[in-house]
Amino acid sequence: MSKKITSLQNVYIKNLVQLRDKSRERRKTGTFLIEGERELSLAIKGGYELETILFYPELFSKEQLINFTNLQANVIEVSKEVYQKLAYRETTEGILGVAKSKENTLTDLVFNTKNPLVLIAEAPEKPGNIGALLRTADAANADAFIIANPKTDLYNPNIIRSSVGCVFTNQVAAGSTKEIISFLKAKNINIYSAILQESVEYHTQDFTKPTAIVVGTEATGLGEDWRVNSTQNIIIPMQGEIDSMNVSVAAGILIFEAKRQRAFE
Amino acid sequence: MSKKITSLQNVYIKNLVQLRDKSRERRKTGTFLIEGERELSLAIKGGYELETILFYPELFSKEQLINFTNLQANVIEVSKEVYQKLAYRETTEGILGVAKSKENTLTDLVFNTKNPLVLIAEAPEKPGNIGALLRTADAANADAFIIANPKTDLYNPNIIRSSVGCVFTNQVAAGSTKEIISFLKAKNINIYSAILQESVEYHTQDFTKPTAIVVGTEATGLGEDWRVNSTQNIIIPMQGEIDSMNVSVAAGILIFEAKRQRAFE
Repeated sequence: MSKKITSLQNVYIKNLVQLRDKSRERRKTGTFLIEGERELSLAIKGGYELETILFYPELFSKEQLINFTNLQANVIEVSKEVYQKLAYRETTEGILGVAKSKENTLTDLVFNTKNPLVLIAEAPEKPGNIGALLRTADAANADAFIIANPKTDLYNPNIIRSSVGCVFTNQVAAGSTKEIISFLKAKNINIYSAILQESVEYHTQDFTKPTAIVVGTEATGLGEDWRVNSTQNIIIPMQGEIDSMNVSVAAGILIFEAKRQRAFE
Repeated sequence: MSKKITSLQNVYIKNLVQLRDKSRERRKTGTFLIEGERELSLAIKGGYELETILFYPELFSKEQLINFTNLQANVIEVSKEVYQKLAYRETTEGILGVAKSKENTLTDLVFNTKNPLVLIAEAPEKPGNIGALLRTADAANADAFIIANPKTDLYNPNIIRSSVGCVFTNQVAAGSTKEIISFLKAKNINIYSAILQESVEYHTQDFTKPTAIVVGTEATGLGEDWRVNSTQNIIIPMQGEIDSMNVSVAAGILIFEAKRQRAFE
């Protein structure tokens, strides 16, 4: 039997709005909100534990709910008003979940290959860019996606949405730039940083060995620590007027050059 | 001597707001609004004729205006209120211009190379994606960027902004898919369409000959006309959970594989 909440004044519902909107609230509670059936399915596939499922039966039927009822989650039916209060998407599906966050520490990363391929982004700001980077890492079946000096937590609803949920199925981690550099060196992973200074053109390098591709923000590029600790700094030759490229496009070009060299194996 | 406008009720200012916000108004008048010094400079570099320059002197000084005063444009000083009414950016620079549109027809395209490289996107919807595609075409020094079956005009302020102004310096054209296919065939340009059916992996193809790379929308992909008229359909092998990639990332991977094969010459 499912519980039902119809009041916008319900304290639990108010807390969920905070959870959706505030990184601080997500950190404090160790939980976050997921919207959409596909995203919830990918979270389950990625090993996330769902505490609660909320559904609005006119959009998401009890029959559809069967896929989620073998879980230990509480199931709560909500009214249209409550659902609209919680949903952040334009096209809504009628289902939300509250999941337990993972720590996403570097030490949790497991590499099952001799020559891992890792994508690293330093201090990316826009959730849309982080989502596109995650999709690129997913498409390339990269062994991990790591955020250095994160500006936001990975469970920001716009990251979940723009990653189409693959934030849950990719191996992801976050840490300081110094921690990540130590980690990569300890694992003997070559560091290729997208930096102008002392760089060579990316396609001249051998990315078939253990490889980390590191990209910075469009505004400030990568910091000094990456420059001095790179195995080799690399650039994508640009021949246009504006000399700038979207960070997720640049990452895609670099990661898929590695994939090409590895014959997509 | 410059004219000065301080009233939000001024009919010309009201018309400029329409020009910024309405594609129909841009088409009707054959003009459009440009915000920002860099964007205006690139428009001049790209051969656009500026009818009017509007500036708010506390943000953009009369000294800075010198770069624009050898033009035939009318110069109008505006008040803070008028400037804020017209500006659409968060960080504003105090300068706007009204420029004459170009037709951007296929027949205007000039190829100065024996083996042109062309990027084509069918019916892209999000201005941010179109901007990222334009930046990719710019970085690759592609010979042209063509939009098939456009959903919006190229002078949408969000396209100008997200392209960082390279919409003005790239060779750009728009047309129906059928017109573009005829054009490419007449020019003997090989067509590589990013389509799943009857496709081969992109990196197996020779992109050193005259090449058009064609991408569709993430939602619906490319239409039938491209499939049957391709020299070869191509795919980027994807090995992840979600089997989807941002369209501008996919275009970047394909175009830069062509650049790599051409040794960035």
